[in-house]
Parts: sequence; C-alpha cells; structure tokens
Amino acid sequence: MSEELDPLVLQKLAINQATTRTRWSNEQSLEGYARHGIQHVTLWRDKVSEIGVRKTKELLSRLGLKVSGLNRIGPVFDNDGRLDAKFIEDAKLGIEEAHDLDADNLMYFPGTSLPNYCDLGDARKQSVDILHQVYEVAKQANVKLVLEPLHPMIAGDRSCFNTMKQCNDICDLVGPELGVVVDVYHVWWDPELQSEISRAGSDRLMGFHINDWLVPTKDLLRDRGMIGDGVIELKKIRGWMENSGYRGPVEIEIFSDYWWDQDPDTVIQTAIERTLKLA
Amino acid sequence: MSEELDPLVLQKLAINQATTRTRWSNEQSLEGYARHGIQHVTLWRDKVSEIGVRKTKELLSRLGLKVSGLNRIGPVFDNDGRLDAKFIEDAKLGIEEAHDLDADNLMYFPGTSLPNYCDLGDARKQSVDILHQVYEVAKQANVKLVLEPLHPMIAGDRSCFNTMKQCNDICDLVGPELGVVVDVYHVWWDPELQSEISRAGSDRLMGFHINDWLVPTKDLLRDRGMIGDGVIELKKIRGWMENSGYRGPVEIEIFSDYWWDQDPDTVIQTAIERTLKLA
Repeated sequence: MSEELDPLVLQKLAINQATTRTRWSNEQSLEGYARHGIQHVTLWRDKVSEIGVRKTKELLSRLGLKVSGLNRIGPVFDNDGRLDAKFIEDAKLGIEEAHDLDADNLMYFPGTSLPNYCDLGDARKQSVDILHQVYEVAKQANVKLVLEPLHPMIAGDRSCFNTMKQCNDICDLVGPELGVVVDVYHVWWDPELQSEISRAGSDRLMGFHINDWLVPTKDLLRDRGMIGDGVIELKKIRGWMENSGYRGPVEIEIFSDYWWDQDPDTVIQTAIERTLKLA
Repeated sequence: MSEELDPLVLQKLAINQATTRTRWSNEQSLEGYARHGIQHVTLWRDKVSEIGVRKTKELLSRLGLKVSGLNRIGPVFDNDGRLDAKFIEDAKLGIEEAHDLDADNLMYFPGTSLPNYCDLGDARKQSVDILHQVYEVAKQANVKLVLEPLHPMIAGDRSCFNTMKQCNDICDLVGPELGVVVDVYHVWWDPELQSEISRAGSDRLMGFHINDWLVPTKDLLRDRGMIGDGVIELKKIRGWMENSGYRGPVEIEIFSDYWWDQDPDTVIQTAIERTLKLA
C-alpha cells in the first residue's frame, strides 16, 4: 500500500499508536505501520505492556521502526483529585521503559485535580512541583521529558496544562532538558501560537502532531477529524514549526470513535495520503 | 419568590435573557425577572424585536429594570466566510437601539470566517479592522462597545476572539472606550486569567457573567451548567474582578438545553439562590 509515495517524504512521518488503538494490538500496529512505509512511531505504555518492552524492542528492530515518543507518565492526581502516592514509582518505571525503547522522548501528563478537587491553580502548581522531581530522575537516565498543552475544553477532566505559553513558562522554570510537543488539535485556535512556537525554538520543540478540528465537533475527546476534514491550517502551522527549527517527524494522531471503527489499514493509508497532500 | 433574599444583595444581580430564551418571550422574561427582584437585564436584539424598542423601553421603565448589556452587533462574516456587506448597516441600527434602551454597553460579536474560509489570522485581522469603524460610530452615539472572549472550542464556528489577552490587546489597539465582558464559562481555564483581568482594570471591565463548566460537557454550545453544578471557582474569579475595580452586576447567563426545558421561574430562582450562596 501507499507504494506510489516517495520514500524520502515518508521518512518524515510518524504514527501515534492511539490512532489505531481499538482494533490493532501493539504487534499488529507496528507491523501495520511498517507495511505502509512508516519509520517512526509513538508508543503507548498500555500497548507496549501487551507483549512487554523486550519483545516490543525486538519487533521494532526487525521492522526498522524508531520510537519518537512514549506515552506517558501520569496523571499525577488520584481519583480524589489529590497527588497520587504511586505516581513517582510509576514514573520511574516509565523512564526506564523510555530508556530501554530508545524513545526520543517521554510524555509527562499531569492530568488535573478537577472535578473532585476544584482548585485549578493549585493543580497546576502541584503538577510543576512533582515535575521537578521526575525531571531529575529522567535526566539521570538520559531520557527527555516532554509536555503537551491540551485543549482548554478538557481542563476540567484531562489536563491542567492548556496552552503553549504555559508549557514554555514551565520549561523555563524546570530546566533546559524539558521539551514541548505541539498537537495542532489542542492549540490551533491560540492567538499566541506562532510566537510561542518561535519562543520554544528548536531545542524545545520535540514533536508535531496532526489531525483536524471538525465543525461541528460532537464529542470533547473522541471526535478529532482526519487530516483535511476540518478547519486547521496545517501547512501554516507546520511552517511555523519549521521556521522555528523543528526538524522532527510529522506525527499522525487521531482520537476518533469514527476512525477507530474503520479498517486500520484504510485509516493509515488515508492519513498518509492526506498528510502528504495537505500538511 | 425569593422573598427571603436580601434586596441589597439582589441589586447586584443581572439576568441575561439567553437564560430563558426558549420559553419566555421578551415581555414574559422582563416581567419574570422583575418578579424575582432582579433590577438589571442584558437584552438580546432578536427578543427586543418581538415588541420593538419603544414598547420594551416602556416595560423596562414600568418594571424598574436597567439594561446592562445589549446583545449584539455581528457576526461580521457571511455564510461564505467573507465580510458581510450588510454588517455596518445593521451595526448602526444596533448602536441606535443600545442608545434608545440606555444600555450600559453593546456587544461586538465578530463571529469567524471558519469553516467556510479557513484563515483564522485573517478573520481576526478583518474583525479588528471593521471594529475600528463601528467603534467611531458608537462613540459618536455615546454607546459603549464591548468584546467578550469566547471559548477556544467554538473558534471554528462562533467567534475568533478567544482569550482575555487577545481582547485586551484589541482594546489597546482600538481605543479607550472599548470594554470587555468576562464570562467565566469561556475563560475559567486560562492560566493568564487573573493577570489579564487585572490588566483590563476598572475602566475596561464592563460585565461579569456566571454559570458553570460541567464534567462531562456533552455539547460545545448548549451544555453550560447551573451555578454550583460544575468546576469553576466562581468566588475566586469574582474576587479577581473586584480586586481589579469591577463594581458592576454579577450576571447569570446559562446556555443549556437542559435548563431551557425547565420552568423559567424555577431556573431563575435556582440561579439566584445558587449565586447568592456560591458566587
């Protein structure tokens, strides 16, 4: 499949495993992406755990796949909205896994203390406090931690990191080894996007995720659009990334009940073709 | 109803007519709010047009109601996502209505060129260009125009003004007579909220709208929560407003299919009681 596509262009693409999470196992997804000529993948720890790190690594090696990112350590809050006592222990495990998988980076996912403990400022403060700790552990292990601003509409139940400016401010505070991933879905609306991407610069920009914003959007979490089906100016934002020195892969990541129901090979092929044409 | 409530506290409340838009006519709503001891109302032009400005004014006068805000002039884009040729003409009419109704302010609602013309930066630029024009007309008529940042999740189909910082920047650019309305629903998530409210200050802060953010939120437009049913820290944000010099009314505005289906008297009484207790 996708045989007619230029392999040099394909080299720049990555697939985030969330895109096929419901219908493909860890093994099926890696084999599937490789079949389409993909060379970079962002893994999810729950998927990796299906066969374990060692077997995943063998599979990656056999298929010639590199790991762009590993998702994720966190959330740092438990079901009561308080700091999760088990977070640090699990974070250490995640850092070990990222190291063993040679992942370019590992996502720090704060979550949010809401709705069960309604102090958003405090959630943000605690998330940064605990990030300082795991940042040191990751640095020791030579693992790069990254933040990703998630859309303000999910600040109440998913993440208290919600803008590029906020993530840049946290990076300034925590240290130079911390990076940022830009997912167009979460930030396309932001009047400060171009200036904050530029502020992040090549050292901090560690990922670029694409998909689309549908009008209308019917679900706050699981209704992302296929590339080209929505209103996001992908080429423009990609230009801002590249002008700021980003040279990493363009990663396809689609959270969508609709696309999760389709044949994963069709999803991947459609996403690759759309990306090469539109993003 | 609400007889046991302190009339001095009630003096600080306003109701936005959108809260009862489906079940109460213009006349019913004004009589209803007055019956609950309310003294400030934000009107919608489509509601006013049911009986016209003159009759609405007589009714307001008889009921002792003052007009906080008039909604709205705009959107400035037509169905193709291009500037609407009829906008200026309608804006002049809206300014005249705001003047005749003695409204404290008139909402400038840019809309967005999306999804039909996908250039968000251009939509923002055009919205500000045309705002310069109507600002001058409003100034001549002694009518105060206000902006309101709307939630980023509706940037694709409702409004291209999406943060307090953006609205403050536009006010800096357009002129000192321009004001800003803070609706907690749209801005509660913003890490810059406190500093941008403070930056706006007492001259610019022209309204404070309350409701709540539900977790989960099931619809991007019509699933706002009743005060107290969600995660927004109302007292905290109200404190920021008052510390910045805001002395205007606290306005109840709930866009909700659920609450639109309930008996409007129950909605108003519930909202008043919740506001006095929680906001």
